[in-house]
Amino acid sequence: MQRKTISVIGARACGPKVAKLAQAVGRMVAELDCILVCGGLAGVMQEACRGAKEAGGLTIGLLPGNEKSDANPFVDIALPTTIGFSRNVIVAASAHIVIALPGSYGTESEICYALVYGRPVINLGGWKVKGMIKAKGVEDARRIVKKLIKK
Amino acid sequence: MQRKTISVIGARACGPKVAKLAQAVGRMVAELDCILVCGGLAGVMQEACRGAKEAGGLTIGLLPGNEKSDANPFVDIALPTTIGFSRNVIVAASAHIVIALPGSYGTESEICYALVYGRPVINLGGWKVKGMIKAKGVEDARRIVKKLIKK
Amino acid sequence: MQRKTISVIGARACGPKVAKLAQAVGRMVAELDCILVCGGLAGVMQEACRGAKEAGGLTIGLLPGNEKSDANPFVDIALPTTIGFSRNVIVAASAHIVIALPGSYGTESEICYALVYGRPVINLGGWKVKGMIKAKGVEDARRIVKKLIKK
Amino acid sequence: MQRKTISVIGARACGPKVAKLAQAVGRMVAELDCILVCGGLAGVMQEACRGAKEAGGLTIGLLPGNEKSDANPFVDIALPTTIGFSRNVIVAASAHIVIALPGSYGTESEICYALVYGRPVINLGGWKVKGMIKAKGVEDARRIVKKLIKK
Repeated sequence: MQRKTISVIGARACGPKVAKLAQAVGRMVAELDCILVCGGLAGVMQEACRGAKEAGGLTIGLLPGNEKSDANPFVDIALPTTIGFSRNVIVAASAHIVIALPGSYGTESEICYALVYGRPVINLGGWKVKGMIKAKGVEDARRIVKKLIKK
Repeated sequence: MQRKTISVIGARACGPKVAKLAQAVGRMVAELDCILVCGGLAGVMQEACRGAKEAGGLTIGLLPGNEKSDANPFVDIALPTTIGFSRNVIVAASAHIVIALPGSYGTESEICYALVYGRPVINLGGWKVKGMIKAKGVEDARRIVKKLIKK
Repeated sequence: MQRKTISVIGARACGPKVAKLAQAVGRMVAELDCILVCGGLAGVMQEACRGAKEAGGLTIGLLPGNEKSDANPFVDIALPTTIGFSRNVIVAASAHIVIALPGSYGTESEICYALVYGRPVINLGGWKVKGMIKAKGVEDARRIVKKLIKK
Repeated sequence: MQRKTISVIGARACGPKVAKLAQAVGRMVAELDCILVCGGLAGVMQEACRGAKEAGGLTIGLLPGNEKSDANPFVDIALPTTIGFSRNVIVAASAHIVIALPGSYGTESEICYALVYGRPVINLGGWKVKGMIKAKGVEDARRIVKKLIKK
């Protein structure tokens, strides 16, 4: 039976507050026995992977370039895509559920693609894009994820 | 010497008001001797191509699928990309300038990618994405395009 | 520490002889504690995944379309890429080592991309493409993989 | 009515003999009133574009990177795709007909993709891939192209 995957998206650089949030989201993903998918680089991606590893989870990094060594140290399975930031489409589409933390244009492109391809997107980043599912915090996001993965 | 290209982006379906706007934008692109690039399908894409052809311009459609016949009837050069809506990245990056009309998630993904890849994006669609260049109408957009292509 | 990944590539349909070979290759990948990556569909991909699962391994399917349900039943982690057969590039580049079984144009495109992006490609399919590493059978391939993953 | 497009593919570096062949192919494409599509870089791509421009044709370069300035000087319309050598898929699929000159793995990936996506591929490069249409020289290729574009 297929494993459930959750993509965690957000900025390549983040301050301590967002880092803490990303770690908590990563832990939650692992605790729910889901696989964490991300873009494999630094910032939100790295902190989410760190959290997932702390909770014994498995992490996948879909890298823009050609080198496995581009991945952050908490990525278990580094998948170099070679297609540049077009890999954002795959980060979005390859998950059952997307969780969006604060980020910039790249993150927003992932949100848009998730919605184009019909993936539920949980909003933990103050995003204004219509069609997302607003969560008040990590525990609220956990509740939403639990409901969605039961389907 | 390379020809200047302008990508016109917007919804796959549009009412008469947006259609008229798209046609005027397409005419403007052709009048400035630029090549119109778009996603090749219906709605804003078709109306922009129609306008460009009325003004004697050349139009390129970057199609998501594998069939040249998917293109709207005003596309001169149909380029099937076969990569689905990932082709939005190429619509964004393949132009010197992007002009954004009203649209949905697909259009927004193109705006984000244009900004990721450093293309100026003229806002004719009431978009709230930061970093775009607001134009009051087609004549204002023409003035902005003229300045940008001189560089 | 990153897990080692091996992509197994080959035709979407195969007879009993190639199926048996693919199963043996899949088992070998799992026995060497590597993760099996493939295109996620039927034929060689399915039989390799079946073999890997028999040996307790983990399998990833990089699907061309948008639906996780397109994956064969032995895929643990289904990653819909939405980019059509362009996903072949990612099947090739996302692995430390590629093992090529008999196949057609799609498989050959993966061999070429693996070589473009500098991945070693083990030839178990009678391929004539230059630059591949010929293996006489599964045990010979196992020996080659062991050497390559030590590096 | 859509313009006919022909993709000319081959190595990024070439000697004088292949350069001359590429120029002749480029001229032929333009003389048949077709648009020349290529990967936009040096070698066979540049010489084919040079030939097409000598004969008054129009040339399109689908570039792997993000910079229009990567194009060879005979490209009229530079389209940066940003997706790396995955753009080979688009070079193959965006044409009515593909003409293959001598090349390496990248060219072979394009031949394979053209065949995957059902484009006729004319063999002017001594390729051994099954399913191609062998031409004895440029005049033979011209005859084949003429027949194919009538359909």
